[in-house]
Amino acid sequence: MSSNQSLKLQVEVCVTPATYHCFHNDESIVVIVDVLRATSSICTAFMNGAKRLIPVGTVDEAKAMKAKGYVVAAERDGYVLDFADFGNSPFNFTAERVQSNDIVYSTTNGTKAIFMASKSHRVVIGSFLNLTALANWLKAQDRNVVIFCAAWKDKFNLEDTVFAGALAELLLNADRYSTICDGTNAALDLWHLAKNDVNGYMQKSAQKARLASKGLDDCLPYCHTLDLGTCIPILEGDSLIDDSIS
Amino acid sequence: MSSNQSLKLQVEVCVTPATYHCFHNDESIVVIVDVLRATSSICTAFMNGAKRLIPVGTVDEAKAMKAKGYVVAAERDGYVLDFADFGNSPFNFTAERVQSNDIVYSTTNGTKAIFMASKSHRVVIGSFLNLTALANWLKAQDRNVVIFCAAWKDKFNLEDTVFAGALAELLLNADRYSTICDGTNAALDLWHLAKNDVNGYMQKSAQKARLASKGLDDCLPYCHTLDLGTCIPILEGDSLIDDSIS
Repeated sequence: MSSNQSLKLQVEVCVTPATYHCFHNDESIVVIVDVLRATSSICTAFMNGAKRLIPVGTVDEAKAMKAKGYVVAAERDGYVLDFADFGNSPFNFTAERVQSNDIVYSTTNGTKAIFMASKSHRVVIGSFLNLTALANWLKAQDRNVVIFCAAWKDKFNLEDTVFAGALAELLLNADRYSTICDGTNAALDLWHLAKNDVNGYMQKSAQKARLASKGLDDCLPYCHTLDLGTCIPILEGDSLIDDSIS
Repeated sequence: MSSNQSLKLQVEVCVTPATYHCFHNDESIVVIVDVLRATSSICTAFMNGAKRLIPVGTVDEAKAMKAKGYVVAAERDGYVLDFADFGNSPFNFTAERVQSNDIVYSTTNGTKAIFMASKSHRVVIGSFLNLTALANWLKAQDRNVVIFCAAWKDKFNLEDTVFAGALAELLLNADRYSTICDGTNAALDLWHLAKNDVNGYMQKSAQKARLASKGLDDCLPYCHTLDLGTCIPILEGDSLIDDSIS
């Protein structure tokens, strides 16, 4: 460790919500990652012109919002909830459906992580789709960064951790960032193994098998594509809005 | 996934105690891993002739056992507790101190993990020091295996995960084992990066920095040495005994 490392901005990777208590603090920016599929879908919604996404934690809340007339995207374990307009595939969030719309959104892991992080300085949404734009936005904020992998029902997952490595690399390439976090170092090493063929690497992931068993793995190549957009979905009050449009 | 994969014995890696609830079941064998330093020290104790190690969870219990006349090894955050006979360096567990002795043992992370896993079919202690002997013993048990990384106060750590990859590789080389666990796949990939120079790879670990800050990192090369012994420390009742001597 260099003598001035502790003065640098810190990059940490929280590999599962079950360990978020080790990373939470009021002053950090928290990047929520749920590559397959919530945060890829959120980015897609904003890339296609959505105005607001309203994350809700429970099925009952999503149902109540539907009764109020909202468009609702909601799933559990990959299945669309029966009252919802559509589910959690990024391909559902078409311009036709989302443009200038407010969408209520509830998923198995991603929305839970958003709520867990809501007491931090700022919550922002990360996916391969907005990777470079997100890294540049984070650098402009000049704060410590916690990359929070939504994982799968508390279990470590590959796709979120590999993305965390990709984002950590872009930050650590800037000299003012540093890390002393084993989660970050593991994520960096896994990213280096995956980066030349992200979609190929991810074929062994448990979530690929889960989605394939339901015929829902058609979105993997898309979710593993870098820099399709430049949206910066941030949490403002109870809604996600695109901070790149302001 | 091959059609008969679900019939195979499963290898899973739990990367932190905070996610052990995802992995616990009564029928699996759980391998406790705390490479720096508890499980390396436990193996060293048995390699040096200890008869029984009695893990205790709290400082108060350790103190009470000292009052009863036991030899007590106990630390918190790397510091030897004031009433203890010695701490948690493997170099403390010399033949002189441990031979034919019962040792009471309490540490920051490792003993906690032992207690968390005590309701499984069997708890066994793993470290690089007994890697191959442990893999062979596990294969003889013919059960699903959960490799339980004790980590650092719930935070993911490199050294336990890399060891998990080393052990998983030896099991998965046998055709009757399989995995669909992202923790296992990540551990395997990290092990492949580390295996040619385990001690060199581990220089970036957070625990190396923690130990170095207290002058306690002299044990790293030893703890990262493969197959120095053949002990199989298992939990029997409230004590660890060496199952290789029977």
